[in-house]
Amino acid sequence: MRSRRFTLFAMMALGALLVVPAVGLAADAPKPPTMAHDASAVPSDFNVGSSINTLWVVIAATLVIFMQAGFAFLEIGFSRGKNVGTIVAKILTNFSIAAFMWWICGFALAFGNGKYFGNSGGFFFSLPDLADGVPSGGFSEAWQSSFGAMSFSSASVPSKFLFQFSFCAVSLAIVWGTTLERIKFGAYVLYAIVFAGVIYPVGAHWVFGGGFLQAGDAFGLGLTGVQDFAGSTAVHLIGATGALAALLLLGPRRGKYGPDGKPRAIPGHNMPLFGLGVIILLIGWVGFNGGSTLMAIDGRFPEVVMITMFASAAGVLSALLVAKIKTGSIDIGMAGNGMIAALVAITAGSGYVAMWAAPIIGGIAGIIVVLGVYAIDKKIDDPVGALSAHGLSGIWGTLACGIFTVPELAKYNAWGDPAGGLIYSGSFDQLIAQAFTVLVAFSFVFIASYLTFWVISKTYGLRVTAAEENAGLDISEHGMYGYPEQFIPAAELFSYGAVPALERIGTGPVSDPEATA
Amino acid sequence: MRSRRFTLFAMMALGALLVVPAVGLAADAPKPPTMAHDASAVPSDFNVGSSINTLWVVIAATLVIFMQAGFAFLEIGFSRGKNVGTIVAKILTNFSIAAFMWWICGFALAFGNGKYFGNSGGFFFSLPDLADGVPSGGFSEAWQSSFGAMSFSSASVPSKFLFQFSFCAVSLAIVWGTTLERIKFGAYVLYAIVFAGVIYPVGAHWVFGGGFLQAGDAFGLGLTGVQDFAGSTAVHLIGATGALAALLLLGPRRGKYGPDGKPRAIPGHNMPLFGLGVIILLIGWVGFNGGSTLMAIDGRFPEVVMITMFASAAGVLSALLVAKIKTGSIDIGMAGNGMIAALVAITAGSGYVAMWAAPIIGGIAGIIVVLGVYAIDKKIDDPVGALSAHGLSGIWGTLACGIFTVPELAKYNAWGDPAGGLIYSGSFDQLIAQAFTVLVAFSFVFIASYLTFWVISKTYGLRVTAAEENAGLDISEHGMYGYPEQFIPAAELFSYGAVPALERIGTGPVSDPEATA
Amino acid sequence: MRSRRFTLFAMMALGALLVVPAVGLAADAPKPPTMAHDASAVPSDFNVGSSINTLWVVIAATLVIFMQAGFAFLEIGFSRGKNVGTIVAKILTNFSIAAFMWWICGFALAFGNGKYFGNSGGFFFSLPDLADGVPSGGFSEAWQSSFGAMSFSSASVPSKFLFQFSFCAVSLAIVWGTTLERIKFGAYVLYAIVFAGVIYPVGAHWVFGGGFLQAGDAFGLGLTGVQDFAGSTAVHLIGATGALAALLLLGPRRGKYGPDGKPRAIPGHNMPLFGLGVIILLIGWVGFNGGSTLMAIDGRFPEVVMITMFASAAGVLSALLVAKIKTGSIDIGMAGNGMIAALVAITAGSGYVAMWAAPIIGGIAGIIVVLGVYAIDKKIDDPVGALSAHGLSGIWGTLACGIFTVPELAKYNAWGDPAGGLIYSGSFDQLIAQAFTVLVAFSFVFIASYLTFWVISKTYGLRVTAAEENAGLDISEHGMYGYPEQFIPAAELFSYGAVPALERIGTGPVSDPEATA
Repeated sequence: MRSRRFTLFAMMALGALLVVPAVGLAADAPKPPTMAHDASAVPSDFNVGSSINTLWVVIAATLVIFMQAGFAFLEIGFSRGKNVGTIVAKILTNFSIAAFMWWICGFALAFGNGKYFGNSGGFFFSLPDLADGVPSGGFSEAWQSSFGAMSFSSASVPSKFLFQFSFCAVSLAIVWGTTLERIKFGAYVLYAIVFAGVIYPVGAHWVFGGGFLQAGDAFGLGLTGVQDFAGSTAVHLIGATGALAALLLLGPRRGKYGPDGKPRAIPGHNMPLFGLGVIILLIGWVGFNGGSTLMAIDGRFPEVVMITMFASAAGVLSALLVAKIKTGSIDIGMAGNGMIAALVAITAGSGYVAMWAAPIIGGIAGIIVVLGVYAIDKKIDDPVGALSAHGLSGIWGTLACGIFTVPELAKYNAWGDPAGGLIYSGSFDQLIAQAFTVLVAFSFVFIASYLTFWVISKTYGLRVTAAEENAGLDISEHGMYGYPEQFIPAAELFSYGAVPALERIGTGPVSDPEATA
Repeated sequence: MRSRRFTLFAMMALGALLVVPAVGLAADAPKPPTMAHDASAVPSDFNVGSSINTLWVVIAATLVIFMQAGFAFLEIGFSRGKNVGTIVAKILTNFSIAAFMWWICGFALAFGNGKYFGNSGGFFFSLPDLADGVPSGGFSEAWQSSFGAMSFSSASVPSKFLFQFSFCAVSLAIVWGTTLERIKFGAYVLYAIVFAGVIYPVGAHWVFGGGFLQAGDAFGLGLTGVQDFAGSTAVHLIGATGALAALLLLGPRRGKYGPDGKPRAIPGHNMPLFGLGVIILLIGWVGFNGGSTLMAIDGRFPEVVMITMFASAAGVLSALLVAKIKTGSIDIGMAGNGMIAALVAITAGSGYVAMWAAPIIGGIAGIIVVLGVYAIDKKIDDPVGALSAHGLSGIWGTLACGIFTVPELAKYNAWGDPAGGLIYSGSFDQLIAQAFTVLVAFSFVFIASYLTFWVISKTYGLRVTAAEENAGLDISEHGMYGYPEQFIPAAELFSYGAVPALERIGTGPVSDPEATA
Repeated sequence: MRSRRFTLFAMMALGALLVVPAVGLAADAPKPPTMAHDASAVPSDFNVGSSINTLWVVIAATLVIFMQAGFAFLEIGFSRGKNVGTIVAKILTNFSIAAFMWWICGFALAFGNGKYFGNSGGFFFSLPDLADGVPSGGFSEAWQSSFGAMSFSSASVPSKFLFQFSFCAVSLAIVWGTTLERIKFGAYVLYAIVFAGVIYPVGAHWVFGGGFLQAGDAFGLGLTGVQDFAGSTAVHLIGATGALAALLLLGPRRGKYGPDGKPRAIPGHNMPLFGLGVIILLIGWVGFNGGSTLMAIDGRFPEVVMITMFASAAGVLSALLVAKIKTGSIDIGMAGNGMIAALVAITAGSGYVAMWAAPIIGGIAGIIVVLGVYAIDKKIDDPVGALSAHGLSGIWGTLACGIFTVPELAKYNAWGDPAGGLIYSGSFDQLIAQAFTVLVAFSFVFIASYLTFWVISKTYGLRVTAAEENAGLDISEHGMYGYPEQFIPAAELFSYGAVPALERIGTGPVSDPEATA
């Protein structure tokens, strides 16, 4: 022990001494050029407006990236303690695959110009400075014309790339809520490649990337363009639809349905961590909806954030009320899911509707999510309620624009019918466009996802064995419990350095053989 | 099982096919107008300074909203494991009620113009764009004159609305720290309506919303105006005063005081989650104090943040030291409470005092909170130390402005005595104004809160039954434990899908009847 | 009980009544001056560019401060349940000491002008407004020339002070990863004073504070200047080197090595909290690397953030793959450590390399960290893998600039060889400068840290007793478990207000003597 320490120390000291001869040797080498840092070399005439917009978009992207923790903890809280570490590994893996696929083709397909998919560039997206040096006028102008649907904002394209990547990662995170506690880890990897590379980009392109649903006149039908400000359909319904496809092939958790076919409650193991997830998602949504302005210079974004917060408040209260009526309890999970559902629902309308409409949209979402969870639970096993919170509420939120969009805001955003939603225009035009979008997006994503999961199930396999499911995914897929001290018998824990409780608190002798060291 | 899946799949596929006929039908309908998105339609001549200020205010508001998680986890950590889920439900419910009340009347009463309460508009606050279309000059100029105390900043009114709402929600969150583990859930709802709708708005109006205490010459006394930069009194003392009122009517937790009347320690169940709460509050305070500049364009806010961080550091160290002297232990809870207390204390002075004063103010707060917790614990049961951390420290921080305010910063902020605090002016004028404010704010909030809680206690009731308290609020109020696996006996958990430990790790047969599936 | 309540209430009511006579008394006093708040008094002609830059730097600093929670939860997750509260106390204490030392001398030594240490001012850093009133031109111009290495950015000096403080606190947090579960609490305090006051500031000054390694021509060797954009060496390697010094003197945890000298796994107790730490660190790195631009006005920072995110993604995937090959498991800890290692590695290059290089640098870091953890674990006990994640990856990241730096970005940042890294320039010049920096920084920090810890070990002592280590640091150093309900026997918990499980759920009589109250 002592000698090992000494050896290491000697080695380090030696390293230090090597600096001196290295100095000597290097002194004889020919001198390479070096630069004296010169502040005046830094360009200063960049576009102020673009800087402000870019700053907001990057901050919003950071908030949305933080939502990964929100989804992780919402799922962890709703899982049993034997299936919690796996969620950490999943979130990190999915985030990473999404990043690669977004870089390779996702961004190009989603936000490039084109009717059905983007094809104006951005594959293997690279930064403008590499080939050309620093662009004149700074980094903000490069690439803008290739991404027309976002070109109304002068935020730099890299900032938009980052922001939209964070959306793709959110949509992917939504997919897995239905699959907890029984899916094979590899299935995440395989589906994530397809989803982040193709399914999400194409679906999102149609709805808010400038594609045929947003541009209007889909299939020559003469429909007006769809309004989905931050992705009630483009992000949340798409994710939830993938989740439905996975669930149908995966089946329920063991023990979820009794021999009589009646559902049993499988309570999540940790409501505080669930709550952490919900609050992280709430502040993530500040960036999600507020950042979807893609600009700060016009001053619209605080109102978008206000509307988002108020809708969420209504969702909490209505969900609590409905759950109380149905079960007699003040349901913690429903309070959180009511908030999520309301946030999902206001996502489409946050840039289109008036303040007073926000609590209506959010409040109805809170009702939908509770009734949806109870109804769906009777037949299919969605452990976190994602089908209701992201699916049903995403549909409701998308439709709500057809009802509540304010004409001035339709014109300001310049998508859809300038006459506004039903209650302003008296016309169903916008509502039809919204419903049509829901139908098209759902159908595309469901079919593509079902096929993908079907192929996975027939090749790699989708579900762990019964024994693995009983043991929990942490130990069976990852080789160690997420909470070893709760799951490993005390006797076995001893070999990990644990000491029996009585000895720990000093009421008995310490039996550890090293105790005299 | 198999057939249910097939049915659902068939249903979905059918949905997809419906798109085609829908296309056909819609093609015959008259075509509604749609807009081609035109970037040039977006106004670009908005006020740059306003945009920068607005951006900072919204970001600061987001940080303050995140403080809800900070309060939740500080409370969760300090509670026993049987009372944790309820805190999640409480935080979401309070946040939601505060949002509604802020919208209906809170913002108008707090920040509208008026001596005793705001009455220049803002009730059922609505966005300027709805009636008038997009305002000329953007969204930043609308409404400003109606909210005079904040009109020195060009940040848009919706951003200020959001920021001040986040403060109201913080003040409300502080109220409940004393009431943990024994209050009835419905009491949150009833008091929150009164507090967020009237008590906080009126109190905050007097102190930092342009009311009579801030404007000076209160009651014709000729006092100078109070200085409370971000709310040591307006937010923290007001919240803590509500907490005191609640506690006096509620009484201690069962078992807190022995038959001899001596207090027993009831240690919190989870110090890591407590620590999470503290660190979230720390970064929340960046927005809380830094954002109270309401602007970024003048460059003052980084210094406000610096001062805030340094005060917090001093509070940690002094609290640790005092607790070590008193108990011999390095007290984790006191380290965290020292940080919170210092942050509370520097809240009033963060925009008024010099760098060197920050560690003094924070360090004294760290001493106050430790001594306060020990003293208060002898008589009344405040599980998280909120009376000390937010109450006593809030008073100290408010008074500290009377001592340490720098004349230049008094003039810069343009409130109070331009000669500065005692050590600069040699005069007690500012200190008297600060003390008077503490007295008035405490008295108003205590009386109003005591009356409100008294009415609640006589009608709805304030406290759960002894049996419910023993069982814990999670199971008794919410129908499920926050940590089911720790609280439900193993035999019962089996029905929730749990499997005995030995079987889980594969050393015995799996007895689950479905094991062969 | 009842009478105590009444007494308190009466006291409070009395306080309120005192307001009235106070009013009367004060009315007779001479009236002090007060200010009517006048919006026009607030200067409005400040530098817009500076405001934007300052805003970004403060936000980035906030994200980096949040990384304290990231480190805390990474360590908590990897510790056993008996050593978790101590980490909360440690993080708060270290943060606080770092703040004081940064204020006293750290900032001055690190970022003042000077070849070997900064000596152009900033000791006991004070705000410019105190002596001089509000500076003309606002707060952004004061002090800039005293901190030359950062003067290329117009962000205000207080914002830079705050940002660089947050870096110092991160570097200090890294030190302790190797010392978990056995170090004496006081050792934190003593070393933190030296590290934050001298070791980090001097090391950081050399590498990225304008010192001799960054300026080039170190020791007259004619080397080019080192490129370390955000501190792979300056922050991460320096922290990890302190960690190595501590570990060599501290030795392994009891039970880590069996009688045969073979390492035993001591699994962390909580993978969800580990995951929380990792994700917080991920978003913290948005500020860490992105904020190291110290400006937003030039539009470079979104690309820095993009590159950072992509490197992290590659690190997760490569670490998972290598760990899977080595162990057959999908290793949750390695997924997280792969992300951290990749973030550390891209820290130096994030402002210098092209998009395509990011996944290469991050991916290699993911391989390094896994192999490093396995190799190091055979001989020395680094519970969180900090030596690999921050040390080896920090070295790799620093060297990577010598290979991948793009000439245009070298010129843009204006440090090092304008011809770029090896693959652009065909020259080893930059790589030699990078390697030399690693050697010098490591040697300096190792020797200084080893000496400091040696003195601590010979005086105060470095390690708790075997009995204390067995009991856990929470109970032995802090007097209470971090998770009392898991560690205190049920019978003893009763005195803290706990009630036996059977009674809690209502299947037996409540035996609490107060039950009838």
